[in-house]
Amino acid sequence: MASSGAAMTESNGTHKFNAHFTKAVINATGPKALPRVRQLTASLVQHLHDFARENELTVDEWMIGLELMNEAGRMSNDRRNEGQLLCDVLGLESLVDEITYKLAADAKDEPTATAILGPFWRQDAPAKQMGDTIVSGIESNDRTWMHGIVTDFRTGKPIEGAVLDVWHTAPNGLYEQQDPAQPDMNLRGRFTTGKDGKYNFYCLRPVPYPIPYDGPAGKVLQALDRHPYRPAHIHFILTAPGYKPIVTQIFDRKSKYLEDDAVFAVKESLIVDFKPSKDDPKADFELPYDFRMATFEDAKKHSVAGATEESATGFSAKT
Amino acid sequence: MASSGAAMTESNGTHKFNAHFTKAVINATGPKALPRVRQLTASLVQHLHDFARENELTVDEWMIGLELMNEAGRMSNDRRNEGQLLCDVLGLESLVDEITYKLAADAKDEPTATAILGPFWRQDAPAKQMGDTIVSGIESNDRTWMHGIVTDFRTGKPIEGAVLDVWHTAPNGLYEQQDPAQPDMNLRGRFTTGKDGKYNFYCLRPVPYPIPYDGPAGKVLQALDRHPYRPAHIHFILTAPGYKPIVTQIFDRKSKYLEDDAVFAVKESLIVDFKPSKDDPKADFELPYDFRMATFEDAKKHSVAGATEESATGFSAKT
Repeated sequence: MASSGAAMTESNGTHKFNAHFTKAVINATGPKALPRVRQLTASLVQHLHDFARENELTVDEWMIGLELMNEAGRMSNDRRNEGQLLCDVLGLESLVDEITYKLAADAKDEPTATAILGPFWRQDAPAKQMGDTIVSGIESNDRTWMHGIVTDFRTGKPIEGAVLDVWHTAPNGLYEQQDPAQPDMNLRGRFTTGKDGKYNFYCLRPVPYPIPYDGPAGKVLQALDRHPYRPAHIHFILTAPGYKPIVTQIFDRKSKYLEDDAVFAVKESLIVDFKPSKDDPKADFELPYDFRMATFEDAKKHSVAGATEESATGFSAKT
Repeated sequence: MASSGAAMTESNGTHKFNAHFTKAVINATGPKALPRVRQLTASLVQHLHDFARENELTVDEWMIGLELMNEAGRMSNDRRNEGQLLCDVLGLESLVDEITYKLAADAKDEPTATAILGPFWRQDAPAKQMGDTIVSGIESNDRTWMHGIVTDFRTGKPIEGAVLDVWHTAPNGLYEQQDPAQPDMNLRGRFTTGKDGKYNFYCLRPVPYPIPYDGPAGKVLQALDRHPYRPAHIHFILTAPGYKPIVTQIFDRKSKYLEDDAVFAVKESLIVDFKPSKDDPKADFELPYDFRMATFEDAKKHSVAGATEESATGFSAKT
């Protein structure tokens, strides 16, 4: 632990370390760096260095953090993103989600609020027909018929060709890619709306589950004396031609952990009510939910960050 | 790129985002977390979130950084630590080195200054006898006889049983573990002093070299329009019973890149002069250098951070 006994304060500034070091690192950036890269790097270096100095971070402590990060990378592949999970338990994904997509989501006439993507989305979930089920090989008393309409938040008109990409966890708390016992792509599907903008499909009423606990994110939660649970939720990505994509989750109002989601993703406007199903022999619950999308143009007016513009950082996320 | 057109300022604080979010994440830490873990996490979360808000970091930009970090972890193994390299190009290792080991290194009567470990040290370098060479299978006109004495910085007395662990790069700019053409453990060795505290061995006058450029650290340097070169240097770890270990590097005064080391490790007191060798047929240069060590007790008086104490973060660096 860093001691507070600082015998050697140099009083060359507000702290006792080399007052020019951080500036030297920031100024090493060359003239050809893109402006956004220069800005983000300068700010990141300043915050990282301030963090280290304010806490008198030792080499040993830095090495612990470094090894957690390297281990997260080593565990990450096309089925698991442990680095993302590490960010999630520190609230970072929820925050950049807010920054990127911030909309007045509580107002009735605004687009559906966003929530984090999370590390379990998979590309190319199977295309399904309206009325299909995404459940395969699971007996359950939580069979749910979900239905609703996708509309333009401003005009109220139905959106044709909206693709609703849905995924949720199995009753054992595992997504299919975490669980060899589940069929590939179980509890995932993509549904495309027709002229009426309506959608409906069968899924399960989801359960709370712990995020993976066997890696660096689990170690961090343990060290922080925090539980790893997420409240019951269903994930969605909505896309439609001319409309800004919506990445979101809806949360079961009856679920535990609404107040202390391990990854800080819950928003009031995304809490929904599962109702007992009356006449449908294929469903135990009914879940009506409507999605409101914004055109790119409308979204721009309401967004605080230029999420629709190209990133200008000069390197791509994929190698 | 984040736009500056913020249409929706909520004026609920100094920024337009949820003013309670960061506090909620920090407050999620449970009562059983160790105090140092609580402190470091709260500070890290605050800085990370401030960084994201101040720059209106978008999801896309965060994902780019995340993928760089995951990729660094994936590339890291017992021969390469890319996460460390990523920290190094942002000056973080040099800073935590300064914080941990800060000593008045410029004064004549103080212990040898420290410098970063870097990612190329290997455990269990071969034990050698005084006068041995660490060079194997390399023809060179930069053969160097390095010699000196290891003393107690306060009493000036020679230290018996000091182990000098040395490693440096080959003339092709590669450490042996990066280079299949070099014998295992080439240009590495451990020398133990006798009663007189003296040491001497043969090595090479090293060359500047680029840090590995094929991973995330290289991408970052490229995006920052920075070169990847380090000035010519030799690495050391000094250990001795009862003395605080010294991790350091010495730098050739004639080398390029002393002013713009890619990893910001150069300190004035660590710059040395290679002298032409006169009478030794086995050496082209002579390099006299003395090391001054401090007992744990003396080091404590001079150190700003409790580097000699056990880390109290509650998780270990190794899994």
